[in-house]
Amino acid sequence: MAHTRDPKHNAALLMRVKRIAGQMEAIERSLTAGAECADLLHQVAGVRGAVNGLMDEIFEAHLREHVAGPGLSDEERARGADELATILRRYAK
Amino acid sequence: MAHTRDPKHNAALLMRVKRIAGQMEAIERSLTAGAECADLLHQVAGVRGAVNGLMDEIFEAHLREHVAGPGLSDEERARGADELATILRRYAK
Amino acid sequence: MAHTRDPKHNAALLMRVKRIAGQMEAIERSLTAGAECADLLHQVAGVRGAVNGLMDEIFEAHLREHVAGPGLSDEERARGADELATILRRYAK
Amino acid sequence: MAHTRDPKHNAALLMRVKRIAGQMEAIERSLTAGAECADLLHQVAGVRGAVNGLMDEIFEAHLREHVAGPGLSDEERARGADELATILRRYAK
Repeated sequence: MAHTRDPKHNAALLMRVKRIAGQMEAIERSLTAGAECADLLHQVAGVRGAVNGLMDEIFEAHLREHVAGPGLSDEERARGADELATILRRYAK
Repeated sequence: MAHTRDPKHNAALLMRVKRIAGQMEAIERSLTAGAECADLLHQVAGVRGAVNGLMDEIFEAHLREHVAGPGLSDEERARGADELATILRRYAK
Repeated sequence: MAHTRDPKHNAALLMRVKRIAGQMEAIERSLTAGAECADLLHQVAGVRGAVNGLMDEIFEAHLREHVAGPGLSDEERARGADELATILRRYAK
Repeated sequence: MAHTRDPKHNAALLMRVKRIAGQMEAIERSLTAGAECADLLHQVAGVRGAVNGLMDEIFEAHLREHVAGPGLSDEERARGADELATILRRYAK
C-alpha cells in the first residue's frame, strides 16, 4: 500500500536524494581522474554527512506522522514506534 | 519534576551505567600501567559501543512512554517527539 | 598531480561507488512510488553502511600507501598522517 | 611489554578518562534522582562525544608514533597500520 507522505515533503526528500546521487557521480569522476586519497575522503565524508541528514529527516517524519500524529489508534502508534526501534537497534552506530 | 520511569527499568539502566563506569576504570588502570595504544583502542571502542547501546535504550524508552504511550494528549506527544528530534539533530553522527 | 593508486584497486573502488549510486537510484524510485517511511529508512541505512565501508577502505589504502609504505621520506609520512588526522577530526562522529 | 607513550601525553589521556568517569557518575546521580529521559539523553550524548574524542586522540597518537614515526622498520610500520585497520573494520560505524 502506498504511503501518504505529504507531496511537498516527498518532493523535498527527492531533491535531497538527487543531490546525494550527484555527489556520488562527482566521486566517480574523481576516481576516474585518479584523484588523491585525501580529496576522495573529503568527498566521501560529505556524502556520509548528507546520508545521515537524510536518514534523520525520514526518521523524524515517521516519528511525527506515525507515532505522534493526532488521530492514530494506540496500535498504530505502537507499530510506528516498533518500526523506529527496529531501525535504531539494527543500525546502531 | 521527577520522572515516572518504571522502577525496574530505572534499575536496569543504572546497572548499565555502572558497568560503563567500571569499563572506564579499567581504561584508567590500563593507561596507568602503560598499555599499548592498540589495546586501549579496543577498550575505548568497547565503551563507545556500550554508550551507544545505553543511548538507544533511553531513546526507545522515551519514544514508547512519551510519544507512543496510550493516554497522552496530542500536545504531550508532540512535545515528546520534539525532544527526540532535538536529540537527533544536535547529535547527528 | 594525479595519484598513483593501483589500477586494480581503483577499479574496485569505482565498482563500489557505482553500486552505491545504484542504491541511491533505488531510493529515488521508492520515493517516487510513495514507499513507506520504514522501508525508506532501511534503504537509506543500507547506503550509509556502504558509504562507511567505502570511507574505511580509502582511509586504509591511504594509511598503507602514504604513511606506512616503504620508501617514503619522514616528511611524506608525516604529511600522510596529517591528512588522516584532519579527516578524523573534521568528521568525528 | 609496557608501551613508551610520552608521559605528558599519557597524563593528558588519563585526565580525559577521569573526566568521562565523572560524567558517568553524573548520569548515575541523574538516574537515581529520576531525571527526565530527555535530560539523560543529553548527558549520555555528551559522554558519547567525549568517548569519540578520546578514541580519535589515541588513534592519532598510534598513527604518528607507530606508523609514521621516524626510525621504525618497514615491518613495524606495517604492523602499526594493521592494528589501525583492524580497529577501523571491527568498529566500523
